[in-house]
Amino acid sequence: MANPVIVEATRGERIESAHRGAGAVVDADGRAVLTFGDAERAVYPRSAVKALQALPLIESGAADRLGLTDNEIALACASHSGGEDHVAAVRAMLAKSGHDEGALECGAHWPLGEGEARSLARSGRTPTALHNNCSGKHAGFICGACAMGVHPRGYVAPDHAVQREVTAAIAAVTGATLSEEMRGVDGCSIPTYAVPLLALARGFARFGTGQGLPRERGQAVARIRTAVAAHPLTVAGKGRFDTEMMSLIGPRVFLKSGAEGVICAALPEAGLGLVVKADDGAGRAAQVMIAALLRRFGGFDEEMEARLARFVSPRLFNWNGVEVGRLRPSGPLA
Amino acid sequence: MANPVIVEATRGERIESAHRGAGAVVDADGRAVLTFGDAERAVYPRSAVKALQALPLIESGAADRLGLTDNEIALACASHSGGEDHVAAVRAMLAKSGHDEGALECGAHWPLGEGEARSLARSGRTPTALHNNCSGKHAGFICGACAMGVHPRGYVAPDHAVQREVTAAIAAVTGATLSEEMRGVDGCSIPTYAVPLLALARGFARFGTGQGLPRERGQAVARIRTAVAAHPLTVAGKGRFDTEMMSLIGPRVFLKSGAEGVICAALPEAGLGLVVKADDGAGRAAQVMIAALLRRFGGFDEEMEARLARFVSPRLFNWNGVEVGRLRPSGPLA
Repeated sequence: MANPVIVEATRGERIESAHRGAGAVVDADGRAVLTFGDAERAVYPRSAVKALQALPLIESGAADRLGLTDNEIALACASHSGGEDHVAAVRAMLAKSGHDEGALECGAHWPLGEGEARSLARSGRTPTALHNNCSGKHAGFICGACAMGVHPRGYVAPDHAVQREVTAAIAAVTGATLSEEMRGVDGCSIPTYAVPLLALARGFARFGTGQGLPRERGQAVARIRTAVAAHPLTVAGKGRFDTEMMSLIGPRVFLKSGAEGVICAALPEAGLGLVVKADDGAGRAAQVMIAALLRRFGGFDEEMEARLARFVSPRLFNWNGVEVGRLRPSGPLA
Repeated sequence: MANPVIVEATRGERIESAHRGAGAVVDADGRAVLTFGDAERAVYPRSAVKALQALPLIESGAADRLGLTDNEIALACASHSGGEDHVAAVRAMLAKSGHDEGALECGAHWPLGEGEARSLARSGRTPTALHNNCSGKHAGFICGACAMGVHPRGYVAPDHAVQREVTAAIAAVTGATLSEEMRGVDGCSIPTYAVPLLALARGFARFGTGQGLPRERGQAVARIRTAVAAHPLTVAGKGRFDTEMMSLIGPRVFLKSGAEGVICAALPEAGLGLVVKADDGAGRAAQVMIAALLRRFGGFDEEMEARLARFVSPRLFNWNGVEVGRLRPSGPLA
């Protein structure tokens, strides 16, 4: 059965495009508060689980041993915009591990941030692996390898000690089985394992509360949440959804976007984990979905609810600044 | 009823995302050769009808009187990448009308082509209305106004003489009623009218053959097709889908992409018009759909069919050049 239409894009009086999708809001015990669409379906979370992938960096003691700052821990969870600050911070983080950008196995691409890309072009330079939006996560893997006493070379491979730890952490927190047949290769070459939406949501309820996690892991998730909340510009960049949402709401929410229309979020006070996936992979649809869910379950006051409106139902403008339409939640999220 | 899934995006062994959509393949008499999904549905064609919007430019005699070249006629049908050549050509075209970029009412944006945007940034400059991907179309409107003896100011408004002619041409060629309730505002501020897919497809069958059109209009469509076929880099840009497809196939195909997942095409030899719309507005889905339809109905030889494979089922690579998945037609287009 088709997932429901959950986001509509209007132009004038008509619906121009529509997105279908699925989602789940779950507590740390796995009780579903709300689901829509096929919430049992396994989806590749892509970059939306970077905070879980950073757990071994903390739990191995690497972060402490290398003296990583909160900004660097946030960077390990980031899909950053490739700005000067991001690049400098990744370089510094690699230096703490005794390596440099030559150790990065993520590949190079022009900065994800449009302004950052143009700024790099204006400087006459071309991008390196440091500009890859995943370079902070990869620097975290390299730091983790050092702490484990293994050479980082080949750290993107599923059977490298670092990825084995990372995979074990995601499996433990979500309760999902991350078998080989659930595996794809991510944009930055590390494995990405498909996880059912319900399991992902439960994982983020645990990530947001520490409930159901061993004591040390509970401390690690709190440390990561604190680091990310303190550095919303580090985890994405100026004008980007994750940064804007976390800057607005503060530590009362954690969220992370992944490619192909996935967003994972946690509401620590409400004890909930939230996951959405747009069937078609559209980021704009995932953003409207998660904003609508956060408004509904966040327990925010009226003022905050009003400030969330521009994310729940963003107005669309053309090149002359004329409002031509909007995005809006529909169906089960209307 | 939901439109069928017509394009799948795979990663590893799994389907990561899927697109639904509708389409129609129709001859000049309006006989449907193939439809899938709701082909009666009216969609905003956006930039996919620029070639029809250029008809008054030819039919008014403006193109002849101002001595427009084939490249300039192609530019009037373009969503160009904003490269140096595009910008210089639009400037020259405006000069022929006695105007300059100050007359453009499309607004400014960074070049659509990523390389072109970086090149502009590298030069230390910022974009003007000339860089807007629609600036050639707008220059065509301004040229048309001159030929009609009206001032171009306000030419983007639905009741300006230029837009009335443009709207009448689209209505006549497609046979659709373009009433006010079907109207939205496009990205470049001109009106865009929703047209049923079947009517759009019939319009492009007529555009591709001249059948069913008055003699002068038949000559105008032939002239536009010839101009576009001779300048595939003008109508889009290096590496872009429209340019690549028309460069590969030549004058045996005409096609034009519009925003939000619409593509209109014509196969003059087969006498067919083709239109697709991705429900969710995804360009990648529209591209796979139209490529699959062109391969099926184009009457191409085996060699050309083989060369079309990379558009019908494009391989997806990550930043390290590793193949991670592909797009593929599915359901009625499998």
